[in-house]
Amino acid sequence: MTSTPRKNSGSVRSFRLEEIAALVGGTVLGDPGTAITGVSGIKEAVPGDITFLSSPKYLPYLSQTAASAVITSKDVTADAKPLVLTDNPSAAFTKVVQAFSEPVEPPQPGTHPTAVVHPTARLGQGVSIGPHAVIEAGAEIGERTVIGAGVYVGRQGRIGKDCRIDAHVCVRERCSIGDRVILHCGAVIGADGFGYERIGEAYVKIPQLGDVRIDDDVEIGANACVDRGRFQSTWIKSGAKIDNLVQIAHNVVIGEHAIIVAQVGISGSTELGKSVIIAGQAGLVGHITVGDGAIIGARSGVSKSVPDGAVVLGEPARPIAETKRIVALTARLPEIAKDVTELKKKLEPPA
Amino acid sequence: MTSTPRKNSGSVRSFRLEEIAALVGGTVLGDPGTAITGVSGIKEAVPGDITFLSSPKYLPYLSQTAASAVITSKDVTADAKPLVLTDNPSAAFTKVVQAFSEPVEPPQPGTHPTAVVHPTARLGQGVSIGPHAVIEAGAEIGERTVIGAGVYVGRQGRIGKDCRIDAHVCVRERCSIGDRVILHCGAVIGADGFGYERIGEAYVKIPQLGDVRIDDDVEIGANACVDRGRFQSTWIKSGAKIDNLVQIAHNVVIGEHAIIVAQVGISGSTELGKSVIIAGQAGLVGHITVGDGAIIGARSGVSKSVPDGAVVLGEPARPIAETKRIVALTARLPEIAKDVTELKKKLEPPA
Amino acid sequence: MTSTPRKNSGSVRSFRLEEIAALVGGTVLGDPGTAITGVSGIKEAVPGDITFLSSPKYLPYLSQTAASAVITSKDVTADAKPLVLTDNPSAAFTKVVQAFSEPVEPPQPGTHPTAVVHPTARLGQGVSIGPHAVIEAGAEIGERTVIGAGVYVGRQGRIGKDCRIDAHVCVRERCSIGDRVILHCGAVIGADGFGYERIGEAYVKIPQLGDVRIDDDVEIGANACVDRGRFQSTWIKSGAKIDNLVQIAHNVVIGEHAIIVAQVGISGSTELGKSVIIAGQAGLVGHITVGDGAIIGARSGVSKSVPDGAVVLGEPARPIAETKRIVALTARLPEIAKDVTELKKKLEPPA
Repeated sequence: MTSTPRKNSGSVRSFRLEEIAALVGGTVLGDPGTAITGVSGIKEAVPGDITFLSSPKYLPYLSQTAASAVITSKDVTADAKPLVLTDNPSAAFTKVVQAFSEPVEPPQPGTHPTAVVHPTARLGQGVSIGPHAVIEAGAEIGERTVIGAGVYVGRQGRIGKDCRIDAHVCVRERCSIGDRVILHCGAVIGADGFGYERIGEAYVKIPQLGDVRIDDDVEIGANACVDRGRFQSTWIKSGAKIDNLVQIAHNVVIGEHAIIVAQVGISGSTELGKSVIIAGQAGLVGHITVGDGAIIGARSGVSKSVPDGAVVLGEPARPIAETKRIVALTARLPEIAKDVTELKKKLEPPA
Repeated sequence: MTSTPRKNSGSVRSFRLEEIAALVGGTVLGDPGTAITGVSGIKEAVPGDITFLSSPKYLPYLSQTAASAVITSKDVTADAKPLVLTDNPSAAFTKVVQAFSEPVEPPQPGTHPTAVVHPTARLGQGVSIGPHAVIEAGAEIGERTVIGAGVYVGRQGRIGKDCRIDAHVCVRERCSIGDRVILHCGAVIGADGFGYERIGEAYVKIPQLGDVRIDDDVEIGANACVDRGRFQSTWIKSGAKIDNLVQIAHNVVIGEHAIIVAQVGISGSTELGKSVIIAGQAGLVGHITVGDGAIIGARSGVSKSVPDGAVVLGEPARPIAETKRIVALTARLPEIAKDVTELKKKLEPPA
Repeated sequence: MTSTPRKNSGSVRSFRLEEIAALVGGTVLGDPGTAITGVSGIKEAVPGDITFLSSPKYLPYLSQTAASAVITSKDVTADAKPLVLTDNPSAAFTKVVQAFSEPVEPPQPGTHPTAVVHPTARLGQGVSIGPHAVIEAGAEIGERTVIGAGVYVGRQGRIGKDCRIDAHVCVRERCSIGDRVILHCGAVIGADGFGYERIGEAYVKIPQLGDVRIDDDVEIGANACVDRGRFQSTWIKSGAKIDNLVQIAHNVVIGEHAIIVAQVGISGSTELGKSVIIAGQAGLVGHITVGDGAIIGARSGVSKSVPDGAVVLGEPARPIAETKRIVALTARLPEIAKDVTELKKKLEPPA
């Protein structure tokens, strides 16, 4: 497996190491005049780059990296390589990357001439509406919100202030979005919940008359789906962060500050408390609750309610220690089966 | 975990309970003059609301709900609370919610001036084409069908009568859709099937020359994908209901009245009989069949054909009773392992 | 389960079998004058059709098919039915299907009047830009590339030559795409990676300042997502083929000629070697490596690095033989548990 360097898009900026230390509020260990011309990950760095080290996972790379300098934490002692010591190397490195990046100029306020904005829609001050966006009757867009190209906002949709609604997002009729929300490309907010009544062989659609309510500071990933409630709101509370391709069914409630990783599916009417974490590809049945602070491991299948603070894993999801013990014993099954066969032989009456 | 009330978007309507009973063809138990000013779920209801109770799961809430009245089934006897008794509380409640909802006026027939409709495309009477939709050469849209904003219909695509094709749907060239079909936002019909021939190290694309055929009364969820066949049709038969983010690979056949829940994946050339149910996040390998009326449990991994009427679950999917027994015994593995260790000790020859 | 014939969209072409043999460089066994009027799968064929047989799975159908002729491999001996013998029946059949298909005329070069192309964007010779596409400032589109309806290319996005970017694809700012790349409808390239720092109860977004780099001859499926790197590139190397609804997180590297089947999820910073195969719905944790030529079975949960050439399966993923043995023994658990109970009884001291 080859590992070719991957570089951020070319930059012609250059900084002295002491300038970088000043930028991040850190202290230099080594030559303060070291010239820094780029930023990179610790494995991919080339001479001239600065990189950072916060995860102990990458400690072995400290002596191997080709970087000219490393941003790291205050407990790291002198090294052959120039260092910048800070309280939070990861945050410091983000600042440095931004210093090397082309400044991204925010889109101009105003409505692109190709956008279709209904005369009854209300746009706050400083709103930017991208090309081919469609804002239907009675919709409302808060101050300084940026609506990307091709975004669709249905009738009486409401989007708050300082939001970033990326290209091709759909927000269907009557759904409401809080302030400082980010919706990534292709996310669909407010499609009909999946509900049918069986009549003979056929399934008859149950009207989905509710809506979706998304509170402040939520982020929802690309091509993720949040269905509208059957007659009330599907509700994503403030600060929840939802990754790409996640499915949130009708009537679900997601508590404050939830973290829901990619491809998770949450079935109808399930309610999550606050600060819940659900790792990737897990699935939850409908009509259960997940308590405050609970953690659900990757790819778990959750079929009953999870208490506050519990950490569960597996299929079916159980307390993590239990699942780990079972998985370990499952791996020992060949041995156990052999033991049982031998025990049976020993106890068989001689022929 | 807090549970704040979630209310449907504000309504200023008010009904007397006897008016509601008349609307749903039910009978009042209690004060027929009770004023009803809103609708809500049984847990979230506030005074003035009417709610409903059909699932036994929510029985304990009947005495606790703050609702002013409850729609329920005829076998429920008198309660402190005014009731409306009906044969089908769920359907009755849907009618009541509709009475409280703003009437959604259907989009006007006609083609939005920003839509791009090829001169050779044929539009039936009463068709509505939304802003920025694109209808390519030779495509055909049936009477009264509503094409949402930004929808793409490829060359010779055919969409039947009375369909609802929501914003941002793609129907690629030569795919055909029946009557009364609903396609939700972002669904992709007719992307190329995933087929390659390996030549040396590289994979060479096998042309996907078939199409997708979707029959009457099908519903397909947001951001779901149905790939075109390699040289024939991928076929979704009438009445099938497919949820969000489902993957249907090339050459698959989905039988009539299937229910396929979110995030399921069905691999190439697999064929489902009629009235099959597949619960969320299950996966099926290619080139198998699933018999009429079979049920596949959530998150099952189906690696061989499933007979008519079978109910399977698990990874690999097995008859549900078998899987449940195995899962229960798996949980008892620590105990079994301990027993085996003790048995071995007992049978060891004394040192 | 009924099996109604599925026919490709009608054709009025007709060929003699010897013409078809000449087209595919094969030899006729049987009547060279047999009239062929259509193409079909072996099970669905009707008289007049030609079909093909390459998979041994379908051998029993050879005598049963209603097709008038069959394309098959040189080792098949004479049959009642006219045959065309070739080295590669599958590739030969694709040629025949193309001969029967309406020739698809490529879209005209040029920019549709409804497209919004920034004056600083550079378009190569022969580029076709579809209706309502949006090409932002500084973007670059290579020669002969076809940009579909409603596609969005962000600022400084770069797309190579001879690409096919289907309707509604988003390529966000600064992402770069090689030559001969196919992106299917709704794919999202360059959404922000999922990264937050916890501060108190809240999660604060970590800026995602990197980009996505996609090399030559890559294909990415409908509604799939490839997130931009945190500060470097998420990188899909040349020849990789990625199916629908796949999630590729930030900083991931996918090696050359990878095959990644639908609904797979790959977590942040994981790196794949070349010629890796990942079957459908598998999930990989972050920060691991998968060696050259490794194969990961369907629905596997991969929680640690996989060496070169390994074939792993299961939850957690283990070498396939091990997983198969464990799964088989798991199915025998009822029997093992019974044995243990009986052994315990035998060894109990008599009451």
